Amino acid sequence: MKWLHMESVRKRARQMGIAPGILPTGPLNAITDVHPVRVGQVTLIEGGGVRTGATAVLPHPDNVYQNRVPAGIAVGNGYGKLMGSTQIRELGEIETPVVLTNTLSAPRAADAIVDWVLTLPGNEAVTTVNPVVGETNDSRLNDIRRRRLTAAMIHRAIREAAPGPVAEGSVGAGTGTMAFGWKGGIGTSSRVVPKSLGGYTVGLLVQSNFGGVLQVLGRPVGRALGRYYLKDELDGGDADGSIMMILATDAPLSDRNLARLARRALFGLARTGASFANGSGDYAIAFSVADGVRRTPTRRRVRSAIADLPNDLLSPLFQAAIESTEEAILNALFTATTINGHNGSIGEAIPLDRVMAALNGHGIETPP
Amino acid sequence: MKWLHMESVRKRARQMGIAPGILPTGPLNAITDVHPVRVGQVTLIEGGGVRTGATAVLPHPDNVYQNRVPAGIAVGNGYGKLMGSTQIRELGEIETPVVLTNTLSAPRAADAIVDWVLTLPGNEAVTTVNPVVGETNDSRLNDIRRRRLTAAMIHRAIREAAPGPVAEGSVGAGTGTMAFGWKGGIGTSSRVVPKSLGGYTVGLLVQSNFGGVLQVLGRPVGRALGRYYLKDELDGGDADGSIMMILATDAPLSDRNLARLARRALFGLARTGASFANGSGDYAIAFSVADGVRRTPTRRRVRSAIADLPNDLLSPLFQAAIESTEEAILNALFTATTINGHNGSIGEAIPLDRVMAALNGHGIETPP
Amino acid sequence: MKWLHMESVRKRARQMGIAPGILPTGPLNAITDVHPVRVGQVTLIEGGGVRTGATAVLPHPDNVYQNRVPAGIAVGNGYGKLMGSTQIRELGEIETPVVLTNTLSAPRAADAIVDWVLTLPGNEAVTTVNPVVGETNDSRLNDIRRRRLTAAMIHRAIREAAPGPVAEGSVGAGTGTMAFGWKGGIGTSSRVVPKSLGGYTVGLLVQSNFGGVLQVLGRPVGRALGRYYLKDELDGGDADGSIMMILATDAPLSDRNLARLARRALFGLARTGASFANGSGDYAIAFSVADGVRRTPTRRRVRSAIADLPNDLLSPLFQAAIESTEEAILNALFTATTINGHNGSIGEAIPLDRVMAALNGHGIETPP
Amino acid sequence: MKWLHMESVRKRARQMGIAPGILPTGPLNAITDVHPVRVGQVTLIEGGGVRTGATAVLPHPDNVYQNRVPAGIAVGNGYGKLMGSTQIRELGEIETPVVLTNTLSAPRAADAIVDWVLTLPGNEAVTTVNPVVGETNDSRLNDIRRRRLTAAMIHRAIREAAPGPVAEGSVGAGTGTMAFGWKGGIGTSSRVVPKSLGGYTVGLLVQSNFGGVLQVLGRPVGRALGRYYLKDELDGGDADGSIMMILATDAPLSDRNLARLARRALFGLARTGASFANGSGDYAIAFSVADGVRRTPTRRRVRSAIADLPNDLLSPLFQAAIESTEEAILNALFTATTINGHNGSIGEAIPLDRVMAALNGHGIETPP
Repeated sequence: MKWLHMESVRKRARQMGIAPGILPTGPLNAITDVHPVRVGQVTLIEGGGVRTGATAVLPHPDNVYQNRVPAGIAVGNGYGKLMGSTQIRELGEIETPVVLTNTLSAPRAADAIVDWVLTLPGNEAVTTVNPVVGETNDSRLNDIRRRRLTAAMIHRAIREAAPGPVAEGSVGAGTGTMAFGWKGGIGTSSRVVPKSLGGYTVGLLVQSNFGGVLQVLGRPVGRALGRYYLKDELDGGDADGSIMMILATDAPLSDRNLARLARRALFGLARTGASFANGSGDYAIAFSVADGVRRTPTRRRVRSAIADLPNDLLSPLFQAAIESTEEAILNALFTATTINGHNGSIGEAIPLDRVMAALNGHGIETPP
Repeated sequence: MKWLHMESVRKRARQMGIAPGILPTGPLNAITDVHPVRVGQVTLIEGGGVRTGATAVLPHPDNVYQNRVPAGIAVGNGYGKLMGSTQIRELGEIETPVVLTNTLSAPRAADAIVDWVLTLPGNEAVTTVNPVVGETNDSRLNDIRRRRLTAAMIHRAIREAAPGPVAEGSVGAGTGTMAFGWKGGIGTSSRVVPKSLGGYTVGLLVQSNFGGVLQVLGRPVGRALGRYYLKDELDGGDADGSIMMILATDAPLSDRNLARLARRALFGLARTGASFANGSGDYAIAFSVADGVRRTPTRRRVRSAIADLPNDLLSPLFQAAIESTEEAILNALFTATTINGHNGSIGEAIPLDRVMAALNGHGIETPP
Repeated sequence: MKWLHMESVRKRARQMGIAPGILPTGPLNAITDVHPVRVGQVTLIEGGGVRTGATAVLPHPDNVYQNRVPAGIAVGNGYGKLMGSTQIRELGEIETPVVLTNTLSAPRAADAIVDWVLTLPGNEAVTTVNPVVGETNDSRLNDIRRRRLTAAMIHRAIREAAPGPVAEGSVGAGTGTMAFGWKGGIGTSSRVVPKSLGGYTVGLLVQSNFGGVLQVLGRPVGRALGRYYLKDELDGGDADGSIMMILATDAPLSDRNLARLARRALFGLARTGASFANGSGDYAIAFSVADGVRRTPTRRRVRSAIADLPNDLLSPLFQAAIESTEEAILNALFTATTINGHNGSIGEAIPLDRVMAALNGHGIETPP
Repeated sequence: MKWLHMESVRKRARQMGIAPGILPTGPLNAITDVHPVRVGQVTLIEGGGVRTGATAVLPHPDNVYQNRVPAGIAVGNGYGKLMGSTQIRELGEIETPVVLTNTLSAPRAADAIVDWVLTLPGNEAVTTVNPVVGETNDSRLNDIRRRRLTAAMIHRAIREAAPGPVAEGSVGAGTGTMAFGWKGGIGTSSRVVPKSLGGYTVGLLVQSNFGGVLQVLGRPVGRALGRYYLKDELDGGDADGSIMMILATDAPLSDRNLARLARRALFGLARTGASFANGSGDYAIAFSVADGVRRTPTRRRVRSAIADLPNDLLSPLFQAAIESTEEAILNALFTATTINGHNGSIGEAIPLDRVMAALNGHGIETPP
């Protein structure tokens, strides 16, 4: 078994001059701009076509089970195996790290999270855990049926989760994913709302594995490159796949408003040309790390006062969520490196020069 | 009182060479490409600042209460007064025309629909009606508090509903609406799925009255024209407003799959640059006119066989819904004519020459 | 036109020794035990079979539009015309009085609420209103198609809303309703949670108009009295009808937790033997009047601290909601007086002596 | 390790003369009255406090992945780890056996289902599986943190699933569960709708592990026996726990109507005195085994005609679901045998003689 932590050698969208939207990014242009969010990833590439991994997002470095964060969920298309959704909705909170992985490894990742929570100091009496696991189906490149991901790898992703820059592209849960017919992967981005409107940050991380008709800043890049959903009209299924989107913010939002924020990620996804195909599991989970809304042991036991940003102040955050989602998806696409998969499959990195050419108006193909 | 039926003297998107997406349109590029859908509109412009109206969409010309159509709903942001939603969701059907109007006239429009249904031949014993009314807030131009719209006008919109071309722009329920800071209104579009994938048509009609950062084919036209949400960072509210989207299809879809189709209209909306602001009511209603799924008196009384297009064949229809929504919104914007509103307000028609210039790359403003 | 304010001359459940559950009631055993809730009712009985009315519930006597209350909704069966639901869910709040009336008058009641709100001092600039209207279908007794209820009557119900005892039975929105084949109507009840668990009050008001197999404290009273759903197996429809349940509490609950509280009203309804038939609109709306959660103009404009009772402390309130719903429904049934309706119909008051006999085990009919 | 298949030596409700509702049962009064449903159970009792198990429900004996069944879900209180919910809602179908187990073993059970599906003949190309797993928390008796349940045991429950009588009480997934302070467990029941109303069967299986104030036929048995929620007012948490309810029917229902049927199980649960406490995961899943709605490979690939029982004919099925749920819960309670659990805990079987005495009016305790 061979472990690889892939470093992206390609370019992020902004390095190419592609800057969706109107709001500025945070310093890292990453979900980790929302302090103290942490991200950890394991990449699993083995002979025999194993091309997969896991990505863990931690709202904060403390015991999340004891110090829960308010959270909300949005489902764009529910063809997916998201775990933990009904309890998040009922209680409005997350009590574990969020782990992303491949479809057939999702239950095992959930099991590993349970292990992890049970053994954390302070959790000795815990008898119920709601693991949150998202997944996309990397079987185009990964020999998914072999299910080689182990609990130890999941634990490692959680344990090694760190603040700072986030590896993007063909890494972690994005190792074997495809998007728009090209190699997809992990991407991240962030936006900062103007100080006069609160100065809050929204950060986003995606595991992209979906299809559609790629647009970059609205330009029909998918058509210019000759790969897009329904190009061959007889192929009604090639837009399948999924995307998991994790949003973090330091704004003190209620769980209801976090669900609304999560919904905006779906709209950012739409801007990239996603087709939201039948076979796609398109989900977003948003949580707030603000101290004022953290569900500490005390706040979970007695009546207390919590911070609240009212409905009327949310719109700038919605804009931030839309923009950062669009950019995170492009970052995943542009940083992803070519992966040779099982059975001779190839997940080809999108050719950045041709993307730039298309943005300049070259080579747009007329639809059939 | 003065009645005006505004004829649009401007251009539809395609006349300007703007053709979102990859699928072909129906012959009219309108919701009425889905036979036998009918649309009727009344426009109410009076001295003293009344600038409003109503638009009625009928699934078919027969008694809809007796011959119901399966239907589904999607809510992008529920700041709106949509009427009829819980029953549509519970029973999966629509039993009245769908009427769009302004926010404060919605109850009266619902009341008028009740009247209409009660008096239709065949409905003599009816004691329950679920009127479906959508609305957007046209108070930027319309003296909405005067509520001058009458039951008779609603009845007229229903009665005069017709197949064929649909008036767009500053007409009907779009008379007083604004979108992206410009005059909005009624827009329509359609898409036809390839014959090999079913050959079905999806048609869409919108009442646009929302905000955001306008994109046309993804180009930052809003920025080029200097009007967009958050341009002045202290103004966090100017993206408010709403959009109602009505989808019709001749594909034999279940109510569950119609709700999924409706959700895709939200994604088409996203592509235009909508911010889905807190104060926006963004709704979509989809219904099927296919004979095989119509809920006739017989089918509502006994076990029967109904037609069903399975989940796996839906993706092309989803693509069609996304594309036609984007185009219907652009059609509303490009065909809308300038309206002078109450208290000196002006709903300015978007300058098409500047749109074209922006599409050619001129005048893009850098965000703050 | 003749106005009648019916005084109930019958007995409440507790006067008959029927006390569902384990928690004590508030002093009035009414929704108005939750201060400062107010209830107002108009009863409309006219020659020619008009037997209907309206009931208004006000969270507090101030301008509700300016001082909103957090709220949640639960739908047991959505065959109903509840107005205002999507916005309540999106924003988690109520901004108008809640009005109950008959099915075909619901839009007009909504229109009357809009009027009311627009003309309140302080609302001069208001251009959007989300009226909340619930309804049940009183057409068994009421000549519902005549729709004689006017805006003035709705305004009167709101204006005359008062604290203190609440008229029950064949009054207000319950004038023409039926439940379990007997005369239904308005009922109310309350519960107080032990001081050690917060000491909060939950109050409930119902408009009962549904069917099933009546149970009183679980005893098969419906069978003892020979009236119950499916008694005649060929009649599959006689359990239709609806129930609106309004819950108030002084516990500082989030809108999410108010939606959960509302759901418990459905479970209290279940205990009475409701069949939740296809044609029933079974809805609950819950709001909190706690100062700490009120959405004042200030709290709606800036970030603030709000009170919050955490998830873990909710169970006693859930118990309170279940119990008070059950009792409110029985109160409606036991206090309702016989009403002669249109076309010779009779809404017979349930014979209390036979109820008592059945509770003592007499006359239980064996099901077919 | 010791395997025990507990045979219930106690009595079902009907054997005690307790027959909730008005509809007749099927021949077995079990979920298996709905042909060709199968149930399989494994019970795991080991030294050191392991008291748990798993229960599998199969819609039919064929490959469920290839021959899916329409399905719907209802959530009464979502404090639970139900797996598979979002995809069931999106696609309206179940593609695996449904497995019930304990909270901390749920992910492992899901993983075992994935294994099972991947290795079935005909599934060689399958790369996506949506395992459906429900759970309740048996940690009062079971040393749940040890998580001794293996994939092999889950496979055994599935493999040995059989038609015919279903073991009830302290068996399978009910081995370690408690209900109303007594030993809970697995229970089942069924109802048959009159032939004139379709003659359909509704069958139900529950895994009961919740709290409240026990009612038997509405009588306050919990109070008579001195065990009920809030008896000691300082103990606000002892109604926690959960219940999983699986409904099967041979009526040709759409997925929407199956979700409605599932909701009725919640109402049957309410009749037993459940408190639907904050810490309870109360879920119902309903599926139809009717040939006319089965999602065969053909029906999933092309447009077809499917059977449909219209909305208007559902009410008798709703009544059936309510009644059979109530009885299934009583069956679980009355058949469950005493289990000595970990750390000296005891799950005491409810004393049937005292239940009968309470039904006869003896020993009702006055609430505090």
